[in-house]
Order: sequence, then structure tokens, then C-alpha cells
Amino acid sequence: MANSKYEYVKKFEMEDKLPPCNWIIVRIDGWHFHGFSDTHEFDKPNDENALNLMNSCAVSMAEHFTDIVFAYGVSDEYSFIWSERSQSYGRRASKILSLCVSYFTSMYVIKWKDFFPQKDLKKPPCFDGRIVLYPRVKMVRDYLCWRQVDCHINNQYNTCCWMLIKSGKSEKEAQELLKGTLAKDKNELLFQQFGINYNELPDIFRKGSCVYKDYAEEMVKVDACGNPVKRRRERVVVGHFDIIGDGFWDEHPYILKED
Amino acid sequence: MANSKYEYVKKFEMEDKLPPCNWIIVRIDGWHFHGFSDTHEFDKPNDENALNLMNSCAVSMAEHFTDIVFAYGVSDEYSFIWSERSQSYGRRASKILSLCVSYFTSMYVIKWKDFFPQKDLKKPPCFDGRIVLYPRVKMVRDYLCWRQVDCHINNQYNTCCWMLIKSGKSEKEAQELLKGTLAKDKNELLFQQFGINYNELPDIFRKGSCVYKDYAEEMVKVDACGNPVKRRRERVVVGHFDIIGDGFWDEHPYILKED
Amino acid sequence: MANSKYEYVKKFEMEDKLPPCNWIIVRIDGWHFHGFSDTHEFDKPNDENALNLMNSCAVSMAEHFTDIVFAYGVSDEYSFIWSERSQSYGRRASKILSLCVSYFTSMYVIKWKDFFPQKDLKKPPCFDGRIVLYPRVKMVRDYLCWRQVDCHINNQYNTCCWMLIKSGKSEKEAQELLKGTLAKDKNELLFQQFGINYNELPDIFRKGSCVYKDYAEEMVKVDACGNPVKRRRERVVVGHFDIIGDGFWDEHPYILKED
Amino acid sequence: MANSKYEYVKKFEMEDKLPPCNWIIVRIDGWHFHGFSDTHEFDKPNDENALNLMNSCAVSMAEHFTDIVFAYGVSDEYSFIWSERSQSYGRRASKILSLCVSYFTSMYVIKWKDFFPQKDLKKPPCFDGRIVLYPRVKMVRDYLCWRQVDCHINNQYNTCCWMLIKSGKSEKEAQELLKGTLAKDKNELLFQQFGINYNELPDIFRKGSCVYKDYAEEMVKVDACGNPVKRRRERVVVGHFDIIGDGFWDEHPYILKED
Repeated sequence: MANSKYEYVKKFEMEDKLPPCNWIIVRIDGWHFHGFSDTHEFDKPNDENALNLMNSCAVSMAEHFTDIVFAYGVSDEYSFIWSERSQSYGRRASKILSLCVSYFTSMYVIKWKDFFPQKDLKKPPCFDGRIVLYPRVKMVRDYLCWRQVDCHINNQYNTCCWMLIKSGKSEKEAQELLKGTLAKDKNELLFQQFGINYNELPDIFRKGSCVYKDYAEEMVKVDACGNPVKRRRERVVVGHFDIIGDGFWDEHPYILKED
Repeated sequence: MANSKYEYVKKFEMEDKLPPCNWIIVRIDGWHFHGFSDTHEFDKPNDENALNLMNSCAVSMAEHFTDIVFAYGVSDEYSFIWSERSQSYGRRASKILSLCVSYFTSMYVIKWKDFFPQKDLKKPPCFDGRIVLYPRVKMVRDYLCWRQVDCHINNQYNTCCWMLIKSGKSEKEAQELLKGTLAKDKNELLFQQFGINYNELPDIFRKGSCVYKDYAEEMVKVDACGNPVKRRRERVVVGHFDIIGDGFWDEHPYILKED
Repeated sequence: MANSKYEYVKKFEMEDKLPPCNWIIVRIDGWHFHGFSDTHEFDKPNDENALNLMNSCAVSMAEHFTDIVFAYGVSDEYSFIWSERSQSYGRRASKILSLCVSYFTSMYVIKWKDFFPQKDLKKPPCFDGRIVLYPRVKMVRDYLCWRQVDCHINNQYNTCCWMLIKSGKSEKEAQELLKGTLAKDKNELLFQQFGINYNELPDIFRKGSCVYKDYAEEMVKVDACGNPVKRRRERVVVGHFDIIGDGFWDEHPYILKED
Repeated sequence: MANSKYEYVKKFEMEDKLPPCNWIIVRIDGWHFHGFSDTHEFDKPNDENALNLMNSCAVSMAEHFTDIVFAYGVSDEYSFIWSERSQSYGRRASKILSLCVSYFTSMYVIKWKDFFPQKDLKKPPCFDGRIVLYPRVKMVRDYLCWRQVDCHINNQYNTCCWMLIKSGKSEKEAQELLKGTLAKDKNELLFQQFGINYNELPDIFRKGSCVYKDYAEEMVKVDACGNPVKRRRERVVVGHFDIIGDGFWDEHPYILKED
């Protein structure tokens, strides 16, 4: 039985190649994670286990998809930056997008038990994703700034909000109190009412998480003359840095290098 | 700290709305499942548990995404047909694609233990996906024919190939023997050498799996006069039918109904 | 001198094939034609020569691009319907779009003198264009209804407005008087104040223009037995019909025939 | 008569915004210009009037569409570079493409008589067009190099070919003789057989044409103290330069300036 009669339907598949020499950012986002985090009783405003689970999945991503040069995560969202030079999957948008969300999701479910040994997974975690292209390094940097500033704004707000709620306010009252406040007002509130110095909160909460390849020299053996033989070893690491300033980028110039 | 300075990066997000009045097919496909099935020692040529796991995930999909009107699966691939009228997620291609692959993947990992209680998941299952649009029902039908004919061709070939291998041939020898054979030659070979009547093999192998909504009347209670009060109940079901002919479609006219 | 060093720039050309089995409508629109019609002192509300020039260009289009099955024009706008089956230019959107606007523009300038023998072309006419796809005949019909209803609404309004202006009102006063009036109010106004029966105005103004292929039998010669030998001859014609009802389409069933 | 019933058809119009911060190149190309140049008996291998007509149209383009920063033409082809910053027409691809080809075509027909006073336009000139995006200045430069190298290769070949034809060879014989020859062989052939020093042929043939905005200081008046009051005046100019090397670009740094 030949299949040729029906094969015309393949002609409806449209090409979706991404243009060359653009940085490809795949941003995935927890879908209805408000409900998901309630169901699994995540700590508020930040659940460190949940963040570490996200980070662990992101590390697996960067190990698995070698064209990912950097990833930045905050809350239930992660942005994966693919090299502008990547030719993986013929730069087909749907391949790149679907493999990213699928692999991440798979990892999230598989690793759940490692980060929540005492909690069963009661709902299927699900992530949506989108691709955004940036033609230059400067814009990739600005994209990351945008996400990190957002992390900061949200975290400061959520920290205040949840401290107020934990101190007895209703959610609505807390929101009312915070309406129109500036950054420094919020820091003041945390310090005055709760003795919290915002800037001493863990970096992972305030700065989000960076995943990238780092290189370390390691000794392989000692040669015949007693000299160490070293090897440059690549490994994917997680850190919580300021990525708005130039410091991090100056120290890791190989991450975002324009052709 | 205002974020406005960096928000220009949002302008690089491109609209990807799918055109109205087209049937949306999301086809997902196991990624490197050859290796995945080896690792997990799937039965050859068909592993019934693995197929049932795929089907169970597809049922969850159809229950969860209510605009999916039909799904067809074979081997490690599944096609989900979204109604041409669907307005879900503003018909944004990347939302629909990413949620489909993510939800399916999530389910696959979660349900693994139910179908393989004695096997640990050793590798992360991963699916790629793509969207294809069809402007008319006739083409959706032809698309499904294309997949079911493919199922038949592959299954017949694989059945022969694996019977030969199990009888002592090498993979290469088996492939040599089958080169250029017609459908009826393969059926003949199965019958003569292995006493297998191809047409008596399970439908799930030969026809693939259909997932769709069925309606059953059920009695809710008995009213004051002793008459049964019935309710039309929708449930998502799995079946293994011929979907090339008109029979199935004539019996389920509500599934693919053109505006 | 080899060119290979620079040829990588060709990889930035993106495919823009239109999906199969969709009707392709190319709508072109006079660009800044308000100014253009002032400069060339077109009659208001309708300039018959200008409309005939548009129609003549549209006829040339349908003769030149044989996959155009129908065209509908009103004012400085024309919609060209390409057969859903057209494979011209590999269905590449930019080829189809650019050739349509270029050929139409070329014809418009070349034919100007035939329709305005006493007027010099003082400004370059320019048309923008866009492509819209329709998956079914019904929607193509509805698209044409949309344009013809628009023609009617605009023409009725403009006729009233210009009669008022010609009778001494300022443009602003005329607009004020017409604000909120219904179709029948406008007909009443035309009849009461100016003795004009709207429905007796020329069809070309009220209904726009249709361009399509018609078939006529013509006698080629007389055969040996004295019987006429006939030939079916195709020619592109212009007409001003109602295309909202079924009449025209029932008489010309070959124009929009779905596969 | 309300139009709302049909307005749903507008929803089939798809957004086609070009991504920000990319240089937009619109390349137009004479369509079937081989026949067009035969019909109008253009000089071979180059018709200076035809080239000047193309250039004159390109100048009008750069004057009219102020976001065009540079244009490069060769033979019946012209590339228009729109600034990466351009927001014209909302960066909608079909607007930009259609207006470019339409305006150019309009100009071509209108100006024909100025460049071919003794020749009637016997066929409608027609141009197709396409849009290509480049994310960085370097690639725009390489694109222009690609076109200029192409100009050189074609012109050298055509010059040889037509000299041979004019000296009595058939077209086929000429092509045979040139098969496999290198650049220096062709120059040698021109010099030995026809006494032509290729490098002394007019720049317009060998280098193509550049259209861009130049700035000149001009004296407006003399002030009260007798000092000249000057004004910087912009005008669109045509030149025939090498645009592969850095010279031209160093002298005109404002043309391609990356954000």
C-alpha cells in the first residue's frame, strides 16, 4: 500500500528557520504556577528548594544543549541564550522551542524527588515557552538587565508583602500599604518593622540565578619530570551575580562574544 | 529602580498568531527514542506498555486542552488536532506548541511508573513538536490517512524484521531479505515462516490509537414518577480503528465539523 | 575574483512561501490618493475616467497573470484573487506582491494618457499592497461582500457630502449634517434636496467593478458540410454587478471553485 | 446597511512587522528584462541611458523615502538600504516592499521619455522585489561587496562576450571561448583582440552606481560684518565608487552608523 496519495499533506509544513547571526533566547515560564506553588506549599516569598530545582534543570539544559551559552532564571521562569552562531536543528524555531520546553519539563519531574523528598508531585508541572531574537550582544545584555531588574522589583515587593501577611495583615491590606511606595520606602519598612536588611537577604532571591560554562585547570597527572600535567576542564556552574554592571561580563568575556 | 530603560527589548517579541479557520495539528515526536527504547528495553517490534503510556498521556492532553478534538498516535509519535475554531492562547503558535510538548512530557514522566512499575526511568524522555495547519476537513482526514498508512507500512516491516532477527538473522540480513518486498510478500513471509496471520495481530499495533471525546447517556436518578433522569456525559476514550475509510467518521460526525 | 567570500549574505534571505490550498488576495490601494486626485482635479465624488483607468489596468493584470480568477475594484483600490491552486512564483509572497503592484503601477502610468488625454501626469501614482489568505470559498465571497458593502456605504456618503458642498455648504457643514444619518435618510436627502434617485446612479459608482474571464462561443469557419465550427474563446471582461447575492456566482460557477 | 457581518474577514490579515534594529534591504529586479531590453534595443553589453534612467529613479526613491540611507544599482537591479532605526510604515514588510516597487516603477515609466526621447515604451516595465534583513553593519557592507563583485564579474564577462559577437562570432561560439577563463584571461583577450583596457572602461559599467545623501556647505548670505553665513545642505547624489574597500565608507561615516 503506497502512501503517495496522501503525502501532499506534507507540503503544508512551513519552514521556520530563524535568521542567521541573531542570538536566540528561549524563555520558558511556569504555567499556572501560582496554583502549582500553592498545591505544593512552596515557601513564600521564595522557596529555596523550588529555586534550586529550577537551577538544577537549567544546568542539565546547558550540559545537554551545548549551544546554550548562558541562562538566567528567576522565580518560575528561565531564559536560555543560544549562541548567535548555533546551527543546531537547522535553526528551526519549532525544534529549538519544543526540545527546550520538553527537556526542561522532563528534568523538572525527574528531579522533583531530589529537591522535595518529602513532598509528592500532585499536579503536572507545565511550562510555556517563546523565542525572541536579538541581533546584537548589547541587546542580549539589556534583555538580561530587564529580567534582573524585574527580579529585584518583584522580590522586594513580595518580601514586603509576605512579611506583612505573616505579621497578621490580609493580602489586600498588605497590597494597600505597599501601593505607591518606592524602593527605599520598602527597604525602610523591612528594616523598621521587621529588622530585615534587604541587602543581606540571600543573593539567589535578590539577583536570580546565572548558569554558564566555567573553565577550571585541573591536574591530570604528574609527568616523568614531576611536573603537573594540567587540562582545561569545562563545567556548567550556577551563580548569583549582578549581571547589569560590566564586572561579570568582563570576567567572562567568552560567554557573549559577537562575531 | 525603574525598568523602563530596558523595556525596549520587549519590542523584539514577534507576533505568531495562527490564521483563523485552519485546523491546527500539533505533532509531537519522541526525540532519539531509538536510544530511549533500547535503554529501557522496550519489546520489539512493539512494546504494548510503552504504547499504553503514550495513549494515557494523550487522554490527559485531550481532557486538559479542551479544544483538542482528536488525537492519533503511533509508535513514539502523536498528532493532536485542535479545532479550527479554537481561540485558546490567542492562537499563538509558540504558546500552543510549547504547552502541548510540556504537558505531554510532564505526563509521560509522571505516569511512567504506572506502566513500567518494574523499570526505572534512566534517561529523560524528550519530545520535539511542530505545528501544521490545514484549511479544510478533507485535508485533516488525508493527514490522518497519511499517518495511519505510515503506521501500517512501518508495523508490517518491523514485524517481519524482528521475527527474522528473533529467528537468528542479523539485523542486516533481515533488512536484505525484506528489500523490495511488497505488502503481500511480507504477509506471506509472516504466515509461511512464523505462522503469523498479520491481520490477526492486535489493532493497536496495526492501526495505531485514536483519542477523542465520546458521549454516553447515564442515568442520574429516578424522578418522582419513577422515570430515569439521564445525562449526556462526555468522556475521552481510546480506540484502534480504521480512520482511512468513512465508517468511523460517519459514526462520529461531531469530531471534524467544518464551519 | 571569486564572490564566495561574500555569498554567505544570501543565507539571510528568508523563505516566504504561502501555504497551499488558500485563496490569495492581493489588495492594492492608491497611496496618498487624496492628494493625487486633488492635483489631477478628479471629479467628485466619483471620477469616471479615473475608475475606467483603474479597470483597464485590472483587465491587463488578469490577462497577464493568468492565475488571477477575479478582481474587484472600488475607488483607488483593487483586490486580485489568485486561485487557491496557483503555483506561480512558487507561491512566494514577495514575488506575487511585488509583481502585482509593479505591473499595476506600470500600466497606470502608461495608460494615463488614454483616459486623461488632456491632463498631464503631475505626480507619480503609487500603490501599496498586501496579501491576505482565505482558506475557503465562503470567506472569499464574504471578503468581496465586505468590499462591496464598503463601496456602497462610502459612495452614498460621498454622494450626499459632495452634493451638499456643491450646493454651497462647507465641507465641515456637510459632514455635520450627515453625522448619524442612516442609509434611508441619505437617500431621502438626495431625493428631497437634489432630486437624485440614488438607485439610478451608475452601477460603476454604486457597485464597483468586477473583472473576470468570460467565455464566448465564436464561429471559426464553416466546415465541409456547411456546419459552423465554433471555438470557446476566453476574454477578460469588466462588469458592475451585485456580488453579495448568489446570482452572479451561480451564473459563473467556474470562477470560485473549491478543490 | 451595516458591514459588521463581513468584517470578520479582516482577522485574516496577518501582522508582518520586521524586527527592530535590523537594516532593511529592499532589492528590486527588472522582471523579464532580457526581453524588455531586446524590445527597446538597449546597447550591449551596457546601455548608458538605461543605467542613467535606473539611477535617476533611485535618486527619486532616496529623496522620497527619507529612511533610505544608501542604494546600489547594477544592470536592471537596485538595492535600497533602509536605516535599522526606520520606523516608517510601522516596519510592516508588505508596506515597505510594495511602496518601493510601486514608486520605482512609476518613476521608471514617467522618466522614460527623458532618457529615451526617441524611443517609445513598447512593453510595461515591471520589477519584482524582496526584503532581506541584516542585523549588523558589517553584513550590510558584505552584502554590498557581494553585489559589486557580481557587477564586476558579469560586466567583464558580458564585455568580452559582446565584443566577440560584434566581431562576428555567434553567441554560442563566444560562450564557448569564454568557458573556464579567469579574470586576467578576459582582460588579456579584450586587450589583445580589441585593444580595450578593461580598467579604462567607464566606472558606471565596472563599479555600478551608488546613491546616497551628501552634504555641502553653501553660502546663504553675508552678515552685517561681512562674514558669510553658511548652511549645510543635503542632496542626493550618484557616484560610481569602489565600495568593497574602506575608503568610501571612511569618507562617509554617517551613512552606515550602527546604534
